[in-house]
Amino acid sequence: MVTGLVDVETLRWDGRRRELVLIDQRALPARLRYVRCGSVKDVAAAIRNMTVRGAPAIGVAAAFGMALAAMRSKARSREKLLEDLRKAREMLSATRPTAVNLFWALDRMMKKAESMSTDRQTIVSELVKEAQKIHDEDVQMNKTIGRYGAELIKDGARVLTHCNAGALATAGYGTAIGVIRYAHESGKKILVYASETRPRLQGAKLTAFELKKLKIPFYVVPDTAVAFLMSKGMIDCVVVGADRIIAKTGHVINKIGTLSAAINANHFKIPFYVAAPSSTIDLHKKVEEVKIEERAEDEVHYVGKTRITPTGVKAVNYAFDITPPELVTAVITEKGVFKPEELYRFLTG
Amino acid sequence: MVTGLVDVETLRWDGRRRELVLIDQRALPARLRYVRCGSVKDVAAAIRNMTVRGAPAIGVAAAFGMALAAMRSKARSREKLLEDLRKAREMLSATRPTAVNLFWALDRMMKKAESMSTDRQTIVSELVKEAQKIHDEDVQMNKTIGRYGAELIKDGARVLTHCNAGALATAGYGTAIGVIRYAHESGKKILVYASETRPRLQGAKLTAFELKKLKIPFYVVPDTAVAFLMSKGMIDCVVVGADRIIAKTGHVINKIGTLSAAINANHFKIPFYVAAPSSTIDLHKKVEEVKIEERAEDEVHYVGKTRITPTGVKAVNYAFDITPPELVTAVITEKGVFKPEELYRFLTG
Repeated sequence: MVTGLVDVETLRWDGRRRELVLIDQRALPARLRYVRCGSVKDVAAAIRNMTVRGAPAIGVAAAFGMALAAMRSKARSREKLLEDLRKAREMLSATRPTAVNLFWALDRMMKKAESMSTDRQTIVSELVKEAQKIHDEDVQMNKTIGRYGAELIKDGARVLTHCNAGALATAGYGTAIGVIRYAHESGKKILVYASETRPRLQGAKLTAFELKKLKIPFYVVPDTAVAFLMSKGMIDCVVVGADRIIAKTGHVINKIGTLSAAINANHFKIPFYVAAPSSTIDLHKKVEEVKIEERAEDEVHYVGKTRITPTGVKAVNYAFDITPPELVTAVITEKGVFKPEELYRFLTG
Repeated sequence: MVTGLVDVETLRWDGRRRELVLIDQRALPARLRYVRCGSVKDVAAAIRNMTVRGAPAIGVAAAFGMALAAMRSKARSREKLLEDLRKAREMLSATRPTAVNLFWALDRMMKKAESMSTDRQTIVSELVKEAQKIHDEDVQMNKTIGRYGAELIKDGARVLTHCNAGALATAGYGTAIGVIRYAHESGKKILVYASETRPRLQGAKLTAFELKKLKIPFYVVPDTAVAFLMSKGMIDCVVVGADRIIAKTGHVINKIGTLSAAINANHFKIPFYVAAPSSTIDLHKKVEEVKIEERAEDEVHYVGKTRITPTGVKAVNYAFDITPPELVTAVITEKGVFKPEELYRFLTG
């Protein structure tokens, strides 16, 4: 694995114990603890309950989930093994519907398995290697995204980021935070505003955890304050990640609150950038075909163990929203920087 | 006091014990408990620490604070009493800088005291009466605001409200919630979306508490979800309160997050209404002259006793923001419904 770039080990393959080791992101920033996954079921649970989250990180976790399924399979024939892998893919597919990297990684692992006409042992070890490759490629893509994106960030820039698109959301380095970090590491003076990102507070918890570790100056701000900061001229640009980008139309599906930040940025004529690896780009589906995950109401009702709402009341809890291409200044990928409506032509042409 | 309209006793004068009794809004919705104020110092503390909050409610509390100052004064002459009242006004003025109703109520009480050339006992009892009058007028104004505003709300409307502009923010009935409530009580089918309103969560806590009590159907939604609900066609109009409306230009100063809701509403061509009594309208100041309160960072770092951010990080915590007149469809007052830019001419002409 590429370890030089990885200072937060979001996902790590323990080759000796043959387990996937995940940072338990639900416990951050209060505690840094790890969860070990020894089976595809463990991995599916970890994705579902958000031990691991962030579109690229989910993809990598799912890839290791497939490797674990092959490893633990009791199948004696290649056909039976592929059948077990198809079941594993189904289980992992059902965890979270919105981020496309999950399906992209599952397809890649399945195709890898199907492409080999060799013995079981080789298939298993090749699948572990493929998952590690997906992991390492993700880190490398992020670093490239960071380099391209940093060119758009001026020295002295005050940058808003929403949710967490950092090392914790990826195999390492981060997408949106990768851009911020690359700019910072190349000597530019950067100040970050991290919006809290209710209901799960990934900005206040995870982005704050990472930026503190990276020693990049920042403030946490309530989501409600974003427009006011912009109106006061306190924000120069916005950089966010993505869970799925619809190549055909350029719609960006990302954490709930992204649309509001984009509309506000547009209102105040502030550039709005989306940073994501090409594994986040959906070449096939239309935006109407994507399921926007709705999560349990209790994510809204409780913060930690504190209930904030009266008992018996109802809440709405969409996990993602959809930002149309006209609100997106550019999409920063490892293949370059594009206007959202250019993506399809570039990637398929 | 008008009690028929008041089902949540935000502020109540206890004539026997000569104390102002406040609902402790910091404890809601978990517990309904009361705080008794026997001195102007008690009232100032209650406003500062947000035991009582909401621009109109703060104004009424401050008026009773002045009455208490007169009552507890040891002054032997009218001149000395007025001096003590001026000190009380100063103390109360320093509690919260943004809502104008506070200063409006203090001026009215001070003028009342200065207008009387009679004995101390009479001044004291007249000041209590004046504070009660401010209280009762507020309830009546809200009911009238409700009646005017309800005409703008269609049967079947799905209404977003931000923060709490209900009975708890006023002497009773509410401004924005007064509008919703009047529409509901006149038989219209109304569904409310209450945005949480980080950091203090007045929407999730106080508006939810009131709407539940009033049996008006509603959902609590994270502030981050407002734009997405609008994009899905789930919101027909927005109604919020105000802490200060600048008559000369029509700028609306209200709880942080209001500007974002207004920009989003404007983007989706959804009407955006502000409901407030004329005591909220500032005829004199320019928007640049108003101090936007910044509150303690810990309001962002903690929810209840749960720390959400890593230790040692910084947060921004503006309590209010400024919405320009071009984003406000109409201001609903007890004197009628106006475009924000019409207010000055109407109120001074």
